[in-house]
Amino acid sequence: MKEPLPILQIKKPADLLLTNGTILTLASGSKPISEGALAIVDGRIVAVGAKAGVESFFEAARTIDARGGLIMPGLINAHTHAAMSLFRGLADDLPLKTWLENHIFPAEKRWVNQEFVYWGTLLAIAEMIRSGTTTFADGYFFEEQAARAVQQSGMRAFLGQGILDFPTPDSPSPAETLKRIEALIQTHSGSSLIHPTLFPHSVYTCSPDLLRRCRDLADRYGVPLIIHLAETKSELDEVLRKYGKSPVNQMENLELLSPSLIACHCVWLTESEMDLLARRGVKVVHNPESNMKLASGVAPIPELLARGVTVGLGTDGCASNNNLDLFQEMDTAAKLDKVYRLDPTVMPSNVVLEMATLGGAKVLGLEREIGSLEVGKKADIIILDLHRPHLQPIYNIVSNLVYSATGADVRDVIIDGKLVMQDRKLLTIDEETVLQKAQDWKEKIAGSGD
Amino acid sequence: MKEPLPILQIKKPADLLLTNGTILTLASGSKPISEGALAIVDGRIVAVGAKAGVESFFEAARTIDARGGLIMPGLINAHTHAAMSLFRGLADDLPLKTWLENHIFPAEKRWVNQEFVYWGTLLAIAEMIRSGTTTFADGYFFEEQAARAVQQSGMRAFLGQGILDFPTPDSPSPAETLKRIEALIQTHSGSSLIHPTLFPHSVYTCSPDLLRRCRDLADRYGVPLIIHLAETKSELDEVLRKYGKSPVNQMENLELLSPSLIACHCVWLTESEMDLLARRGVKVVHNPESNMKLASGVAPIPELLARGVTVGLGTDGCASNNNLDLFQEMDTAAKLDKVYRLDPTVMPSNVVLEMATLGGAKVLGLEREIGSLEVGKKADIIILDLHRPHLQPIYNIVSNLVYSATGADVRDVIIDGKLVMQDRKLLTIDEETVLQKAQDWKEKIAGSGD
Repeated sequence: MKEPLPILQIKKPADLLLTNGTILTLASGSKPISEGALAIVDGRIVAVGAKAGVESFFEAARTIDARGGLIMPGLINAHTHAAMSLFRGLADDLPLKTWLENHIFPAEKRWVNQEFVYWGTLLAIAEMIRSGTTTFADGYFFEEQAARAVQQSGMRAFLGQGILDFPTPDSPSPAETLKRIEALIQTHSGSSLIHPTLFPHSVYTCSPDLLRRCRDLADRYGVPLIIHLAETKSELDEVLRKYGKSPVNQMENLELLSPSLIACHCVWLTESEMDLLARRGVKVVHNPESNMKLASGVAPIPELLARGVTVGLGTDGCASNNNLDLFQEMDTAAKLDKVYRLDPTVMPSNVVLEMATLGGAKVLGLEREIGSLEVGKKADIIILDLHRPHLQPIYNIVSNLVYSATGADVRDVIIDGKLVMQDRKLLTIDEETVLQKAQDWKEKIAGSGD
Repeated sequence: MKEPLPILQIKKPADLLLTNGTILTLASGSKPISEGALAIVDGRIVAVGAKAGVESFFEAARTIDARGGLIMPGLINAHTHAAMSLFRGLADDLPLKTWLENHIFPAEKRWVNQEFVYWGTLLAIAEMIRSGTTTFADGYFFEEQAARAVQQSGMRAFLGQGILDFPTPDSPSPAETLKRIEALIQTHSGSSLIHPTLFPHSVYTCSPDLLRRCRDLADRYGVPLIIHLAETKSELDEVLRKYGKSPVNQMENLELLSPSLIACHCVWLTESEMDLLARRGVKVVHNPESNMKLASGVAPIPELLARGVTVGLGTDGCASNNNLDLFQEMDTAAKLDKVYRLDPTVMPSNVVLEMATLGGAKVLGLEREIGSLEVGKKADIIILDLHRPHLQPIYNIVSNLVYSATGADVRDVIIDGKLVMQDRKLLTIDEETVLQKAQDWKEKIAGSGD
């Protein structure tokens, strides 16, 4: 009788191995994996599961020990205006019209330039990475500069170039803006991190013709259209007065309701408009904190979800929140609808967590790439430190994430397979310089007497 | 001509000197002091003002450099159930009756004992100190054990011993509980940190006779009475059915509405009940996150404030929030009323910050001792690190505190003149042991199959 031949197990090389933590993959039907491991090759997840299994197949150039931590998908901020971080706290608690017309619009007109957008976006990215966001959808001006900040920091972003009927800080006319967007889309074609797109501001600030031209350009390049839709009662009234139709019906009229439309806020909707959004496959972004702070109203999110509408979660800009922490936003999203309907069962924690991860990925059309930890997907991953008084004990990890955690519990962040924060130290951003620039801008803006 | 005699300035000794930070005293009419300093002797503030002035008069045994930070009063959590931290996330998103009767009440009956309250309160205190709270008002059982935790940690607390018509985890009858409270009050008479008091649970769980006996005992010792009042619609309905009066009117009927009553929640109030609360000088505690999560309703806080009612801010217990972070609670308090009334001007940030500081002190009758940084007051002080992306730039520090900060931005905490957290390290609590105990309790509770 012969001896059996020894089986020589050759381990495959991985770029990065995360090990020892509890893993919440958020893949459909998944359960938390305690003592898990995850391997990354070329920016993508190649294995995720029990530690013993993963480690028997892969050996990595670099390993991160996540003991006592939670490994989960990075969060997706589906609607913000990143560079407005430089206006954080500039004006609050004011009537909407005063806030916009006497503070935000004049400040934008006077101060928003290339440098402002570059440093403001970097400041916002620093905050987002620190609070566990790995992808954001922006809507602002000078998005070439936002792209520069995104590129340098290794963040993933959809960059919506703002378009309005009137001149903007970066462009004398909508025609110029459209050219600018087209160039930006072409420049970053094929980029894994940077997805330039169009952000026509709203139905009341963009003419029907401009909206149609935006749609045509977006369709030509297969990029989504981001818009503020039915955000406030005054928007509803103005659009009704102007077009004899509600914002949603006006969009339908212009044939703009489609699966590539990302409609932000969606507060003032009728039942039949919700049906219509569902039928057209429009994606919706929920911004509860901004809707609260600006007193816009409570969006009918449970009703949209019940109709099968895809909903992501966003913080909106820093001037109306005033932070970019999606963990806090999840908490608010879970609680607001409960009190508004006097029903504690709506918006349970798992639904809200999905909204901030896979929901956001679906909104951006990236659900095959990000939003959950699955083999083949891009490695956008965060590790939380759970060894903290406010996160213990853990009966239900999803509850603790939504109701107890904040972004400050995030320890490490990986985007596109690259470590961008380790032990709360940013690796791709010179934080000191960014903080100094924020202070410089504030002194300029506040010191101007405007 | 004689030479002038040199003036020999003898500096007075101080125990602790805080220097270089911006100081927000929150004293009436005060403005932020940049480059400030504050001196502490025997647990009290003896000087606060410009650095040069304070440092010319005092030299300290120990100095804390608060450069880049903000020195402000510690926050006051005016309503919580500290030991319930061990039930954090045990049950969420359920109908109120199911949540209470199938989860919380049975868990309390089975698990709440002396050890549970001791470790649960320590866990809660660890979380509160870490998030900048220096005083809390508790309402639970085995408050002798809460007192033990408070004593050890150097926290300041009002400890409301829970009383109900039926047997509680710590007592077979209300009569026993009253004896227990009396003993606890006597034991801690004259303590600076520990203020035992009575917490008759509510009008629907305490008989008129019991409520009167509570009032008599509280009056005899000059301690406040803490109660849940008009929290939910079902409470309103039940009390109406039982007594033919609303909870507030039933309390008036029993002559319990007085300046020493601390009424928590106060959601379901009529205009005339608000007038009555104001007339009687009743103190109110606002718990917006708990009221949202349990779908209790939105409390009419702006209306109460307009009537001159003193309002403090509380997190409620961890089973209905699920954290004890008053910075997040301020954010929610500022935003909830705005969206509820569709008015972005209500509950401005300065009003909310006062609610969490001096307002809470007034609720507890300690406004001459704590709630602002003034000479003669006790040194309950927190230092925040402002050198962080989500707290920059600063146009209005109060806005950043309410809308942008979280408890994780607190760096150092001083209570009664003693440093209890430095550079985010707890100095009076063995955090590792507390976290281990929290996990042990969870395993026992979750493992029991209940």
